[in-house]
Amino acid sequence: MTEEERGAVRTEEENIMNWEEKVKRMVPYVPGEQPKRKDIIKLNTNECPYPPAPAVKKALQEFDYESLRLYPDPDCSILVEALAKRFHKKPGQIFVGVGSDDVLAMAFMTFFQSGEKILFPEISYSFYDVWAKLYDIPFEMVPLKEDFSICADDYCKPNGGVVIANPNAPTGLAAGLSDIEKIVAANPDSVVIVDEAYVDFGGESAVDLVEKYENLLVVQTYSKSRSLAGLRVGYAIGSEKLIKYMLDVKFSFNSYTLNRLALEVGTASLADEEYFRETCGKIVATRERVKGELKELGFTFPDSSTNFIFAKPTGITAKELFEALKKEGIYVRFFDKPVLREYLRISIGTDEEMDRLLAAIREIVGK
Amino acid sequence: MTEEERGAVRTEEENIMNWEEKVKRMVPYVPGEQPKRKDIIKLNTNECPYPPAPAVKKALQEFDYESLRLYPDPDCSILVEALAKRFHKKPGQIFVGVGSDDVLAMAFMTFFQSGEKILFPEISYSFYDVWAKLYDIPFEMVPLKEDFSICADDYCKPNGGVVIANPNAPTGLAAGLSDIEKIVAANPDSVVIVDEAYVDFGGESAVDLVEKYENLLVVQTYSKSRSLAGLRVGYAIGSEKLIKYMLDVKFSFNSYTLNRLALEVGTASLADEEYFRETCGKIVATRERVKGELKELGFTFPDSSTNFIFAKPTGITAKELFEALKKEGIYVRFFDKPVLREYLRISIGTDEEMDRLLAAIREIVGK
Repeated sequence: MTEEERGAVRTEEENIMNWEEKVKRMVPYVPGEQPKRKDIIKLNTNECPYPPAPAVKKALQEFDYESLRLYPDPDCSILVEALAKRFHKKPGQIFVGVGSDDVLAMAFMTFFQSGEKILFPEISYSFYDVWAKLYDIPFEMVPLKEDFSICADDYCKPNGGVVIANPNAPTGLAAGLSDIEKIVAANPDSVVIVDEAYVDFGGESAVDLVEKYENLLVVQTYSKSRSLAGLRVGYAIGSEKLIKYMLDVKFSFNSYTLNRLALEVGTASLADEEYFRETCGKIVATRERVKGELKELGFTFPDSSTNFIFAKPTGITAKELFEALKKEGIYVRFFDKPVLREYLRISIGTDEEMDRLLAAIREIVGK
Repeated sequence: MTEEERGAVRTEEENIMNWEEKVKRMVPYVPGEQPKRKDIIKLNTNECPYPPAPAVKKALQEFDYESLRLYPDPDCSILVEALAKRFHKKPGQIFVGVGSDDVLAMAFMTFFQSGEKILFPEISYSFYDVWAKLYDIPFEMVPLKEDFSICADDYCKPNGGVVIANPNAPTGLAAGLSDIEKIVAANPDSVVIVDEAYVDFGGESAVDLVEKYENLLVVQTYSKSRSLAGLRVGYAIGSEKLIKYMLDVKFSFNSYTLNRLALEVGTASLADEEYFRETCGKIVATRERVKGELKELGFTFPDSSTNFIFAKPTGITAKELFEALKKEGIYVRFFDKPVLREYLRISIGTDEEMDRLLAAIREIVGK
């Protein structure tokens, strides 16, 4: 840069507040750490410890790399049709996106535009209030009961929309389908989103209620139970009318979201239901065993229906335990917020990984 | 469904306007047709007729499918670092997204929040006004000169932001870098986005101006010159401050956008600069030859610096020619809008494809 050019830069810096005043300033959601080292036990972002279905491997091997020169199908038809078949729905009832975060972001943009407050639990997926702030949607965070369960009646009042994670995160606790139906039925004037990221590990899905309630949107993901967090595929199931509105917004944002690889691999994954059920079954079995062991170690926790346990240690603070485990190369999730900071969210890994975790905890707490 | 349940549904249908009134209603951007049949000559969405770089094939073959169980790196570090190296920038000056549409959508959301009118050419990428409507951003579409060139002075007035596609689409016409710099320099109070989707086919990039102007964001894509429309990778280059604001919004929308495959393959593509230059060179050579042949057939067109020609036929309307070509299995793009409807946007395919196009045109117009 010449002196003259530097001068020009300086002059602009003096005016700098002008363009910066026009910027949307956000405090973003902070995802769990994704450490680059490989020699750790990673129990901090609720990934699946088992590989994706063998059909995924095959789809990748058979993928024609030359096809990447062409845009993907903007309608994502092969994936939409496979999901429709899997859930006994029409293709027009399925919306797919770049992970369930993308799907939820689109749903917030599409449905929560009335200026009325939307409702969601005070302790839940901490992206909900970030999206609300991003789109300037007023919101009310509804307290949970003492035992972390939701009180359906709290969502039966005028609102601009409702979002419930079921099972909830980071508590792991599932609400009964009758509670979910009560909330949906009480809100014919709003869209109710049920975020079922963890439903395959023991929750009751609301998917079949979409035939009965036009205002219900059920969101699920490939990231947990399908071992495909790295593929970025999520989907929503709802009435055709609801899905059409979401598609109109999606096509006003980005015509081509899922790449050709995600479409092929995502479709292939659905072909192997047995492997899917087996994987979920293994995680549930490990979880139940670990629950017993944690109890013996004096931990308390809400009863998990997910692939993680939200556990409160005794004799050591959660933060101390979090840091001690990290030193041992074991990553779990710690949320430094009121109430949550008493707990650790521990993803369910393989049996071997969980044994190493339990051994490390025993070592740390001296039991 | 029981009779009682049907009754419940009916009652909800009577209230139906309530939730629907809360919906954001959009008239979406309509992308070029993506026909599912394979036996066509596809010159309608500006894809590259040549396969992606050999390094892409290799990256796919070596990809470890088991890694898909883990989330991708939310910072997209390998790709960001490779792009930074390629453009002699710092990693903090690079933003990556799901195609340049995703990058542009994020930039609109981040930078055009002042309530002041943003400016863009009346004839340009037709997604700009769709995004403006999506985010309730007021906008003014600035007329082009008679010859489709932009008049830089028209963008030197108070505004909430500026977007210029350079080279422009669908005209194919490039503005000189001095015009671009004039617009950027005249707007220290706004962010100026230069959308360079087609720059590798003959435009002058504004990338190096980002060191001088903190308010300049340059957006490029893998979809055209890198033969990777199916991978969905786009990126922006700007000052570190600008990029940081975009990242804050991005992380408030979706933490994990690019999947593991896009990160690996997108990085691999950059390793093969020679193949990249060769491919762009072939397209430019074909384009120049086709320009000559179209001129001989009486077509007129602005001088293209892109991988398409925006051409006006004689003796037949553009719509008639569009339909006649489609019957022959040759897809080009027709925009049914004032002025644009006199032209066809014809993507540059292989020499053989263009010869078949030219033969079909001769047949149709009887020359």
